[in-house]
Formats: sequence, structure tokens, C-alpha cells
Amino acid sequence: MKHENGLIIVLSGFSGAGKGTIMKHLLASYPGEYCLSISATTRQMRDGEQEGREYFFKSREEFDAMIASRELLEYATFNGNSYGTPRDYVEKLVAEGKDVILEIEIQGALQVRELYPDALLLFVMPPSADELKERLVGRGTESPEVIAQRLAISARESQFMPQYDYLVVNDILDESVKQVHEIIQSEHYRVERNHLTIKKMQEDLKKFERSM
Amino acid sequence: MKHENGLIIVLSGFSGAGKGTIMKHLLASYPGEYCLSISATTRQMRDGEQEGREYFFKSREEFDAMIASRELLEYATFNGNSYGTPRDYVEKLVAEGKDVILEIEIQGALQVRELYPDALLLFVMPPSADELKERLVGRGTESPEVIAQRLAISARESQFMPQYDYLVVNDILDESVKQVHEIIQSEHYRVERNHLTIKKMQEDLKKFERSM
Repeated sequence: MKHENGLIIVLSGFSGAGKGTIMKHLLASYPGEYCLSISATTRQMRDGEQEGREYFFKSREEFDAMIASRELLEYATFNGNSYGTPRDYVEKLVAEGKDVILEIEIQGALQVRELYPDALLLFVMPPSADELKERLVGRGTESPEVIAQRLAISARESQFMPQYDYLVVNDILDESVKQVHEIIQSEHYRVERNHLTIKKMQEDLKKFERSM
Repeated sequence: MKHENGLIIVLSGFSGAGKGTIMKHLLASYPGEYCLSISATTRQMRDGEQEGREYFFKSREEFDAMIASRELLEYATFNGNSYGTPRDYVEKLVAEGKDVILEIEIQGALQVRELYPDALLLFVMPPSADELKERLVGRGTESPEVIAQRLAISARESQFMPQYDYLVVNDILDESVKQVHEIIQSEHYRVERNHLTIKKMQEDLKKFERSM
């Protein structure tokens, strides 16, 4: 069965939950199945990055102009840098039947939900709060203050978990990647996403009745 | 992650869509994963059948008494024989965290939905109406009148498709079996089915905040 439409899929979750890693493995494990949305940002390009690959790099003025002309379907600001998802790119791919994944933060996810009630929102979390703390500590790169701050942000963000559609418990990476894939594939068969298929079946069966 | 509860899963669909075959292969492919609900019926036991394996065989009086005492969570009558799902058995298994599958007709499915709004309703359909007709004709066991009657019933039943949760398009059997399995597994991760997990995460993260 051909899917009626591509899905807009939001992958977000706590800092340190591993959503970036899941994302990378998902794209590698199912090549051609998913498109990754590329964000626009006002932050500086870093060594090794490339325009249009990691981000579309914009000046503050350009970014504000994109907001003003509603070219971004969501945007958010962290540490003085703004990040946003260009609307055109996503809508074009979805119309072609492609599944597009947005790896974005929670405030952006809720904007997407408002604009596209049909979007699929996945929340990546570690198996437990203790595990989240251990992962942040285990990196060895963050000071205790930064870790405390991250956990405080996670505590605040956890209030929005009920607004998502699915939890992805990132315990064993391969399983989480498979789980994300299966959730997306299954969603395509939800009745609400197949009105045309159902209507066609109903009409064709009625035609039989009339012809008999 | 341990699932918070078992699911009540209803598998129904058009006569000739292959739901019985999907069911049999699902149980064989994922041994121990699913429990099949066994119906009570007033119809005569046939050769090779066994009490409590295919059905619980009941007299009309016994069956009516089960209805009166609300021991059946759904029931329906076809060709003068009644069929129903014993409630006890299903509720006990679900409370133990088991996923229980009911292979029942559409009128029963809608009764289950009313009693258990959280039940998962899957509708098995062939890839097209033409294919459904061909399968019925291909069996070679039915008269044209019976085939016409079956298709008319399917036409009527198709009106209820939008009340289901998922479509299962039965084209290639192995894929349909896998699809049913993945839909059920994915459903376990829906946010609405994980309130306790979310609440625990929220509370544990808050505890960190207080302790830091």
C-alpha cells in the first residue's frame, strides 16, 4: 500500500538521552527511508561544517526576516543563538510522500504540533533519571554546575512529555533505532492517516453491490 | 521497559481478508508474546474440536445466562449461533501484563471499544475490493449468490472502518504478520499508555533538583 502522505516526525528529548545518536543510526540503517530536516541557525559555522549540510547559516537579520515572513515552521533560541526549521523544504518533501525527521528541542516540538496536528512527536528518554545523571557525569566534560543545570532543565522539560505521542526509551541503541523505525512505519497504517484508502474501498464495494 | 499493562487487541475485517491466517501465523511466529482469547459459542462442536481449545461450548440457556450476568465482554449472533468473549479470562491476562487478541466480527469489535476505550482495534483488508472478490471466487466453494451476499456484507461493514485504529493490508502474509506485531509493540510506547513511567521520571528529576 502506498502511503497517502509523508509524515512530519519530531524527535526530541532530554539532553544526554542520545537522540542525536539514534538519529544518525536511523538514517544509516534505513537508507533512503527518511529525510532529515536541516535547520537554519544564526550561530557561527564551525570547522568541518558545511553550508546546507549541518545547517543553513544565516545572519541575525536574515533569520529575523525568515521569522517575519513565516518561512520557519518552528524556531527557538539557546545561548544567544537561534535555530529554526525552514518550512518550504519540509512541506515539499512531505507532499512527495517522504517522511521528514526534525531533531529539535521541546519548545520547537510544541510549535510543530500546533502548526501540524498530524505530526508525530517522539520523546527520547533514558531508562531512568539516575541513568540520565550518570550519562551526563560519565561524559567527564561538564562541571557539576553544568550537570545540575542540565538536570534542572530536564526536570522542567519532563512536564511536556504527556504532549508527545510516543516514548522512546534509549537503553540499547540498536533496539531504540528499530523501535523508532517501527513506530513510524506503524503510524502510516493508522486509520486517520488513510482516509482515501478507506473511502476507495467503501466506494468499490458499493459498486459491486450495484452491479450484482 | 516493562509495559504498564497488557493490551486488548481486536483483529477483525472482511470475510476472506485472511484474518484467521494472520492470527495463526502471529501466534506461531512470536511464541509466548500473545494470548488468544477463546470464545464461548452455542454452535455444535465439530469433529476434531475440543472444549476450551477452539471454543467453550455452551447451551443456549448457559449462553443467555452469561449475557445476563455480564460475563461476556462482547457477543454476536450469526446464522442462529451465538459467539461471545468471556470477560474474566481477558481481564485476568491483561492485568498480568499480557497482550490478548480477540479475533471477532465488527459488531463485537465496537462493543469492545465501548467497554474498553483503550483497546486496540485492527482492521484486516485485502489490497483492493477486486482482490477481495477474487479471493472469494477463487475458493471455488461458494455459489455466486453466497459471494454476492458476502460482498454486500463487506460493503456494509466497510462503513465501520473509520472506527478502528489501524488498517492491516493483507497482501503478502509474512509482511502482514510482521506489521500486526510491530503495530502492537509500538502501541505499548504510546504516551497515553505510559502515565506511570512518565510520572516516575518527572518525580525523580524533581528530587535531583531539590538535592542539588
